[in-house]
Amino acid sequence: MTDGNVVVALDVGGTGMKCALVRPDGTVAHAERHPTDAERGPAAVVDTILSVAGALAGKAHAAGLAPIGAGVVVPGVVDEARGRAVWSANVGFRDIPLRDLVSARLGLPAALGHDVRAGGLAEARLGAGRDARHVLFVAIGTGIAAAHVVDGSAAVGAHGAAGEIGHILVRPDGPRCGCGRPGCLEAVASASAVARRYAELAGRAESTDEPQQADGATQAHGPQPADGADGASVGVPVPGATMVTAAEVADRAAAGESLAGRVWREAVEALADGLATGQALFDVETVVLGGGLAQAGDLLLDPLRVALRERLTFHREPRLVPATLGDEAGCLGAALLALDQLETR
Amino acid sequence: MTDGNVVVALDVGGTGMKCALVRPDGTVAHAERHPTDAERGPAAVVDTILSVAGALAGKAHAAGLAPIGAGVVVPGVVDEARGRAVWSANVGFRDIPLRDLVSARLGLPAALGHDVRAGGLAEARLGAGRDARHVLFVAIGTGIAAAHVVDGSAAVGAHGAAGEIGHILVRPDGPRCGCGRPGCLEAVASASAVARRYAELAGRAESTDEPQQADGATQAHGPQPADGADGASVGVPVPGATMVTAAEVADRAAAGESLAGRVWREAVEALADGLATGQALFDVETVVLGGGLAQAGDLLLDPLRVALRERLTFHREPRLVPATLGDEAGCLGAALLALDQLETR
Repeated sequence: MTDGNVVVALDVGGTGMKCALVRPDGTVAHAERHPTDAERGPAAVVDTILSVAGALAGKAHAAGLAPIGAGVVVPGVVDEARGRAVWSANVGFRDIPLRDLVSARLGLPAALGHDVRAGGLAEARLGAGRDARHVLFVAIGTGIAAAHVVDGSAAVGAHGAAGEIGHILVRPDGPRCGCGRPGCLEAVASASAVARRYAELAGRAESTDEPQQADGATQAHGPQPADGADGASVGVPVPGATMVTAAEVADRAAAGESLAGRVWREAVEALADGLATGQALFDVETVVLGGGLAQAGDLLLDPLRVALRERLTFHREPRLVPATLGDEAGCLGAALLALDQLETR
Repeated sequence: MTDGNVVVALDVGGTGMKCALVRPDGTVAHAERHPTDAERGPAAVVDTILSVAGALAGKAHAAGLAPIGAGVVVPGVVDEARGRAVWSANVGFRDIPLRDLVSARLGLPAALGHDVRAGGLAEARLGAGRDARHVLFVAIGTGIAAAHVVDGSAAVGAHGAAGEIGHILVRPDGPRCGCGRPGCLEAVASASAVARRYAELAGRAESTDEPQQADGATQAHGPQPADGADGASVGVPVPGATMVTAAEVADRAAAGESLAGRVWREAVEALADGLATGQALFDVETVVLGGGLAQAGDLLLDPLRVALRERLTFHREPRLVPATLGDEAGCLGAALLALDQLETR
């Protein structure tokens, strides 16, 4: 009968939920997706989580599988020990005892975790970091966050907030971050920061006919222009320019467009500074890059390896590899949390 | 008989060795100090370590105590799993199998560790962090290094190099660090950096009669003067000015001297940036400050708490407390490593 055991796994994001029935060996017996519809408010989202989890357990039974536990991961600040979704901007959770709600609905032991830490756990144990004992997973998308995984366990922190590599200082004179501080890594090198910076510079080039300063493109370490202090309000983006995504900036840079090259180089330099800080503190074997920006592949990894190497004067250089589990990492990590919890009971 | 059990503990530094016989409850049965005389070369230092350890075991026996193990901690890069002192600038070690050498000399199980990580371990378990599960110990002296201790165990890293908070970037346009990179925390905020910066600015004020720029004192986040890129070679320190220590800079700042106030403020701001980065990544309950600079006490802690609070927009603020074990922390940590190893055998 244990051959048919599965855990119910849900990765709840701001826009969608990735859901699966996962076997103890990490293989997926069934997968499905649902919209989160976060605009309905946190209570409605919790209802959806519970009914999707219940329906998944029902599907398991119908397929002759035995659900033995559940794992749910959410963004924001998560108190894993107490099983509470403490705070989340994009799903609206405020101190919700989600673990116990799921457990009560399913009549099964449940685990609650953090989406990026769970994704890192999955990449470290099943994905790109599976040969390493010390892994730093860095997800670069709208924001930037990390999971430090040692011996298959992700650091949670004292208040469920470890791994916020997006909010470390890299450019004291850089653009203001969504968190309120200037110069955070996320404000310079996230996918949205790259797109915003390109739009800003393209708009400025369009709205003035002045040539760019000759040293502007190579001055990635130097001060940003003073009017770049608030990235959200500067520049006059030309129509259309705002639609250029970070991936397109990477492509344009590779095609030799000088403005895109400058923006990409600035982002890569800032990421290298952030990863060098991570390596100084964590000393890992492998850094796994995930999230939207990592889909730029070698356009990101090649220059980033060079820039990181320049910064590591006495530290061992970590392997820098792309994530391999794609956007299923968080859901697989939710399953691993459920399985780990069953093991320690 | 187990009432008389002790471990032999040595903290080997660049100038001196702190040595003790420590009981399983962490109390010290006997303590002594010896010069390291590192200029004799690593082989002679190893000889001294072995003879001091042997003599300590002999003293234990003579006092009716039973030495049951040994712990040695050294600076630099330490491979704790393999028991090797991989690299150390100030003692000159290059891949020395110190654990096995000590074990063979004493006929006892031995552990090898890193001095700052061991100091952090002791502060977390016996000192200022003993009420917290998640502790970051930061030693600020000639250099700056940290130990991240969770549940009484210090993170070592994949290559024995975790915790190098002195080498995270805080001022991209700041002075060059001894490691070769510009703007490391250690290059801006270590005790030696504070003394050097004061000497540099005092020398400059002396050698020119120009008034300081009005914004110079408040521009801690802004770019440093271009000629400050290499802190070691700029300025013309006046005779005597180079003799002002970081502690004296703190005192002069407290007494209202404007130049000292500026230097101290710059260091505090940089330290706050470094600690905020640490908190973003580790999310600890308590930050314990040790090392020479921490002896400035409230002159450091009070402004540092304010500056750190400004930087933590969504993270929980850690308790910021001074170390309580003084310069015995490393030696006590060596004893804890020895005891931990005996427990896991």
